[in-house]
Amino acid sequence: MKRLRRLLSRRRARDAEQAFVLEGTTIVDEALDAGIELEAVFVTAGAAESTLDRAAAAGVAVRELAPGVIERVADTVTPQPVLAVARYLDAPLEIVQDVTLAVVCVGVSDPGNAGTLLRSAEAAGVGAVVCCDGSVDVYNPKTVRASAGALFHVPVVAGGDAVAVLDRIGGWGLRRLGAAPSGGDDYTNVDLAGPTAFVVGNEAHGLPPALGRSLDGHVTIPMAGRAESLNVGTATAILCFEAARQRREPRP
Amino acid sequence: MKRLRRLLSRRRARDAEQAFVLEGTTIVDEALDAGIELEAVFVTAGAAESTLDRAAAAGVAVRELAPGVIERVADTVTPQPVLAVARYLDAPLEIVQDVTLAVVCVGVSDPGNAGTLLRSAEAAGVGAVVCCDGSVDVYNPKTVRASAGALFHVPVVAGGDAVAVLDRIGGWGLRRLGAAPSGGDDYTNVDLAGPTAFVVGNEAHGLPPALGRSLDGHVTIPMAGRAESLNVGTATAILCFEAARQRREPRP
Repeated sequence: MKRLRRLLSRRRARDAEQAFVLEGTTIVDEALDAGIELEAVFVTAGAAESTLDRAAAAGVAVRELAPGVIERVADTVTPQPVLAVARYLDAPLEIVQDVTLAVVCVGVSDPGNAGTLLRSAEAAGVGAVVCCDGSVDVYNPKTVRASAGALFHVPVVAGGDAVAVLDRIGGWGLRRLGAAPSGGDDYTNVDLAGPTAFVVGNEAHGLPPALGRSLDGHVTIPMAGRAESLNVGTATAILCFEAARQRREPRP
Repeated sequence: MKRLRRLLSRRRARDAEQAFVLEGTTIVDEALDAGIELEAVFVTAGAAESTLDRAAAAGVAVRELAPGVIERVADTVTPQPVLAVARYLDAPLEIVQDVTLAVVCVGVSDPGNAGTLLRSAEAAGVGAVVCCDGSVDVYNPKTVRASAGALFHVPVVAGGDAVAVLDRIGGWGLRRLGAAPSGGDDYTNVDLAGPTAFVVGNEAHGLPPALGRSLDGHVTIPMAGRAESLNVGTATAILCFEAARQRREPRP
């Protein structure tokens, strides 16, 4: 149980083992649906039978825990009586060569926002999400929960250094557009139908200015009311769905 | 202090007093910035001086509490040492007569989603948000927090019965478009430049079918991947920003 607690609470432990924890029947079911390889499933009496049957059918080891153990270990306030350990799902950066819409996170720090971002990215048809150094770990339990299973469907890349990532992505022909709360081009006036990577920054500080040289431009969502009224997950959703809209539109 | 706790934890208490609680310097500052009338500000030693000075300058009673009291009362896990009581900000439904973009919530049940929805609505230039019976109370402490001050800038209407609300709004000439996870018209193919009210439903169950007769149509956001991948706050943001886009576009 110490291992589960460590994997839930410490990124360093997750990185060292390249493994993370899924909490609750919903997300474990999502993982099984998506054919994700699970190392083990941990349950107490009362866990949903269907989940256990499916885990067993998928050849996953199922271990029973004493009553109360999961509740003590879990990150959630009202945990469901199932935990599972899965291997990191990291895709190689090279996957971005083959996608036409990508999101690059630089310093996105809120785990809930990162989860919402993944969820919206999946819905918008984003082909890859790259998380550079300084961005939240997508295997954080809060991110896993907020992603609502999107983590199993959108390829996620642990990107490393942002400048190096953007240089490679640019070399592959994607247009790298930084999301700026103000001062960029109106995102609806920018051609987003070609290969595009939206580069999104920290909730409070935006993108590091030093990144400017590694970008092909900046886009801004014109806002009524006060500035910076959108969270990074919502802003990314709006950008990605505008790209999807332009791609559905008949070309002149 | 019992009153503060009651106002934080029970909608019925808020409704009876027509008052709600703001937690933390950020949101209290936002309220003062917006010229919201505060009944009282409660602090312990260590509260931000600037907030107190401004509250006093605005003629608001400032009351000191014994150390630890706010921490025991507050809804937040890491409370900031300031609470304030404000009167309900409800606008009358008639305000919708004068707006060209409105959001009507029917059964939106998650307080965080409702807060994000308010925040995005403000940013998209929505003129009014109507919360019908069965929708979360916008004065829920989680909604107040997630709205990030938008509650002070977007008129919010406590709507009552959804059918009655939609009938009146329709009579005023707004096109009432229900948001449907599937089966509606592609939202980017619908003319959203005229007076429009988006009608959004419960996170899990959508809009009640009986509401169909009170709607002028349904709109759907085409999604890649699995169905229902967007939360109601994000979906509302995408719809409202598409309306904003169409309104900026030069008319043919």
